[in-house]
Amino acid sequence: MSLFEKHKLLVDNAIRAIHDRGYYAAYAELPKAYPEDSLAKASGGYNNYLSNKFELPAQGAPLGWAGEEVSPYTQEPLDVRYPIYKTDDVIERAGTAFYSWRKTTPAERTGLLIESLDKIKEHFFEIALATQHTTGQSWIMSFQASGPHAADRALETIALGYYEQTRFPEKVLWEKPTGKFSVKLEKEFRPQPRGIGVVVGCSTFPVWNSLPGLFANLVSGNAAIVKPHPKSILPIAICVAAIQQTFMESGYDPCTVQLAADTTSHQNTKELVLHPDVKLIDYTGSTDFGNYIESLPGKISFTEKAGVNSVIIDSVANLDPVLQNLAFSVSLYSGQMCTAPQNFFIPDKVIEGDQTIAFDEVVGRMKDQLNLLVNNPKMGAGVLGAVQNEITLARIENAEALGGRLLLSSSAVRNEEFANSRTVSPVLMEAEASENHIFESELFGPIAIAIRTRDTDESIKLAKELASEHGAITCAAYTTDENMMRKISEEMNEVFTPVTFNLTGPIWVNQHAAFSDFHVTGGNSAGNASLTNPEFVIKRFVWVGNRRMI
Amino acid sequence: MSLFEKHKLLVDNAIRAIHDRGYYAAYAELPKAYPEDSLAKASGGYNNYLSNKFELPAQGAPLGWAGEEVSPYTQEPLDVRYPIYKTDDVIERAGTAFYSWRKTTPAERTGLLIESLDKIKEHFFEIALATQHTTGQSWIMSFQASGPHAADRALETIALGYYEQTRFPEKVLWEKPTGKFSVKLEKEFRPQPRGIGVVVGCSTFPVWNSLPGLFANLVSGNAAIVKPHPKSILPIAICVAAIQQTFMESGYDPCTVQLAADTTSHQNTKELVLHPDVKLIDYTGSTDFGNYIESLPGKISFTEKAGVNSVIIDSVANLDPVLQNLAFSVSLYSGQMCTAPQNFFIPDKVIEGDQTIAFDEVVGRMKDQLNLLVNNPKMGAGVLGAVQNEITLARIENAEALGGRLLLSSSAVRNEEFANSRTVSPVLMEAEASENHIFESELFGPIAIAIRTRDTDESIKLAKELASEHGAITCAAYTTDENMMRKISEEMNEVFTPVTFNLTGPIWVNQHAAFSDFHVTGGNSAGNASLTNPEFVIKRFVWVGNRRMI
Repeated sequence: MSLFEKHKLLVDNAIRAIHDRGYYAAYAELPKAYPEDSLAKASGGYNNYLSNKFELPAQGAPLGWAGEEVSPYTQEPLDVRYPIYKTDDVIERAGTAFYSWRKTTPAERTGLLIESLDKIKEHFFEIALATQHTTGQSWIMSFQASGPHAADRALETIALGYYEQTRFPEKVLWEKPTGKFSVKLEKEFRPQPRGIGVVVGCSTFPVWNSLPGLFANLVSGNAAIVKPHPKSILPIAICVAAIQQTFMESGYDPCTVQLAADTTSHQNTKELVLHPDVKLIDYTGSTDFGNYIESLPGKISFTEKAGVNSVIIDSVANLDPVLQNLAFSVSLYSGQMCTAPQNFFIPDKVIEGDQTIAFDEVVGRMKDQLNLLVNNPKMGAGVLGAVQNEITLARIENAEALGGRLLLSSSAVRNEEFANSRTVSPVLMEAEASENHIFESELFGPIAIAIRTRDTDESIKLAKELASEHGAITCAAYTTDENMMRKISEEMNEVFTPVTFNLTGPIWVNQHAAFSDFHVTGGNSAGNASLTNPEFVIKRFVWVGNRRMI
Repeated sequence: MSLFEKHKLLVDNAIRAIHDRGYYAAYAELPKAYPEDSLAKASGGYNNYLSNKFELPAQGAPLGWAGEEVSPYTQEPLDVRYPIYKTDDVIERAGTAFYSWRKTTPAERTGLLIESLDKIKEHFFEIALATQHTTGQSWIMSFQASGPHAADRALETIALGYYEQTRFPEKVLWEKPTGKFSVKLEKEFRPQPRGIGVVVGCSTFPVWNSLPGLFANLVSGNAAIVKPHPKSILPIAICVAAIQQTFMESGYDPCTVQLAADTTSHQNTKELVLHPDVKLIDYTGSTDFGNYIESLPGKISFTEKAGVNSVIIDSVANLDPVLQNLAFSVSLYSGQMCTAPQNFFIPDKVIEGDQTIAFDEVVGRMKDQLNLLVNNPKMGAGVLGAVQNEITLARIENAEALGGRLLLSSSAVRNEEFANSRTVSPVLMEAEASENHIFESELFGPIAIAIRTRDTDESIKLAKELASEHGAITCAAYTTDENMMRKISEEMNEVFTPVTFNLTGPIWVNQHAAFSDFHVTGGNSAGNASLTNPEFVIKRFVWVGNRRMI
């Protein structure tokens, strides 16, 4: 049985789920669904990586070894050293691998890639520990985001890539009647890969943000190079090694996917993406560098950059569950999610049931909810996780410099498990609608700004302008009025920002589910690509049709 | 019955045909399939346009009137004057139209646009006359290319656009089980149009190359502006007027599509495409300006530029039918097709049946076939049509300056119907494989270069290099060897060039059929878009998903 046949049911289910867009998950998201000794085993495996070389023998002898990861929980170096290669050598190996990989069929690639995902699954717990100690995500988020959720998003791109590449017939008879006789051509349609694809990772979601582009490249027959963020290499390095192992075991060139790690002082991203053989670039990171990537001639880019996410509060049945939900969204992984809300547009008067509540009271109750969450020993430190880097920490600590009225300043939060954890409470600020210099940029980290507006129309106007000019990935809105709901969604959708209405309870605007939610629309300046719309896969290959007379 | 219901069967058939890719045509391609008095009526209508103003009252009062079209058949001005508008006014009207157009559904747009195509169909004969007397195409090609073939390609984009925009559910219940209870969200998925799209036309195929982008923009909910080539406005102006009329009759804003004509001395293309509200650009024309269009930040472009098309002759059963077919391809519309072959790679020895034929003999027989075609009074002038402009004519007349050995120089060809027709015979040159300065650029017009190679491997190498560096839209190859066929297709497909094998008889490499052939692959420098692959439509809208708690 071929690997494709082995995984065919999964492919079919995934393709159906992509088009149904109801709930579907191929990988179980809770650690307890995996073998009982998984964590114990993984801890041993993870510890073996520390203070060691991360060997990737398939990629040959490196120029040297380097690593600079530091755990946000222990604030100590992981001391994992990664092989550093000459960029030309990485490209050359990718070119060789591409030569044979491009000759495989979409089905063959699909089977092998799902087999690779299953191999990655065997490392979910190791990857989770590596994610926790490089990104600062909590244990459970590390497990979910870098494990099952990332694998589901990868499966989504594989299945959609397979679907799109097999959408037109491999061969067809074209017979044109011309009266007395007919002209007959045999036609074949071949999806042709573009070349080499580089996936540039980020320090906060090193796996979740990298796997979709990586697998989309591979399923389309492109060779792939992963360029991780130097502060967060280990989680994706484990994935790359697992894919390479799967390829070797099945007799394919392991260098079809390679790791091209670098260091902060000697970065290789520009060298990689500027190489003429590199045709595809996936990028998650800053707006400036993302704009540079998008501007490169002759390259096809898929970017996720910064955005400014808004909350619009108009009317609610009960305010506290709403504020509780929003406090959680702001605090989750200390706001280091591209989907986290930042700007809370609150009118002078908010309707709660049959009452109206003044702005100041809404903001006061928001402050209460943030304090309740942070000070809840079962919640606070776990929800906040740790701050990935010092720059984000400095931004939070110097929040008063941003110019708003500081309602809640940040303070250290004790993490029972890790005494040195870089964990702090969120900042809450207040600003007037006119003070847009305070809130018009992304303030990465747990910073919420309550912005006083005249009314919800002004809230919408401001949120729309911000999304249009500075990009937005999410918008959370609360209204009990159907007409207002329609207005908010229409206005925000015009600037390609999705709106999530009236969330309370255990579901948050930050979450984008595989097989259902498009993550980033690709329409505003928060990014030019979307996980996973058809564009995300079909731009990676080219339809070419041959014809012959018969 | 809604217009969508009225046309639903056609939409369904077109969607099926797109995915089957066998022969399908919605519009009959022969004039005789249309009412008997069509030409007589159309001639009257066409004559009424001449020496007159082309009124587009829906677009308001123009700044002035201008027109500079000259018939390549009579070499006399058509003296049609088109309204000239201030670019800002055109954009403003498009913006107003966009505001309401974007609120229509894909089905509603699809119905109205097919209704518009049917209105255009009523003008097929007028459009054909206008095409003939602006482009120099023969009457029959003018009819087919600007009439049924263009309408079929338009229908193809409408149907694919409808399919892609309705591919995901408008509404779905997302229910995630979480053990004790489940989280339920109602989700909706809305394809959002990008904004205003400008379609920049060319002088040789003013309708065929413009309708697909125009209708792809419209079906996706974008407003559209047509910027025709100043030497070939009338054919597409008639189409725009027909669409505007259909929109008015059905109560839609006619300025959803506008004509923005300009003159050679006061061009408006840059002004249009640089306007911040213009998000989409379709372009057919020179490589230099196409590269400029592709480089514009924040714009999504669909380009067709110059390419260098190759013929590879390896082995044939009978050489003369092959050369006859190729002579026709070179002569058809005097080589003014982006699909016309230019470079004939012929090895020292060509296999014909069980014999080998020397290069010189092959070229000699090619010359004979060209002469036979040109001198056949029933064929010559009709196949050649007329040369659209003086620059192309000068290139043909000065062919010896290109550097090759001139085997056949160009001379005037008499057209029985039009004594002043700018009709000339094709040029045949000979070059060595090493003389690539002679054949590495597109020599627009009826210029064929026979290039002597060592063997077919060298022919492939050269054709591949040219396609890779300078782009290619077609490649015709002749071989009786299955292995060689595989090799040629693999090598040329790697540089995103389709290969057509062994054509003889009444079908030519120049022809790309709607619902079956992808016209331009979008993978090499001949253009970044393809008629009509899914990418051609889905880049014009953005998927946005809203969610609400229930």
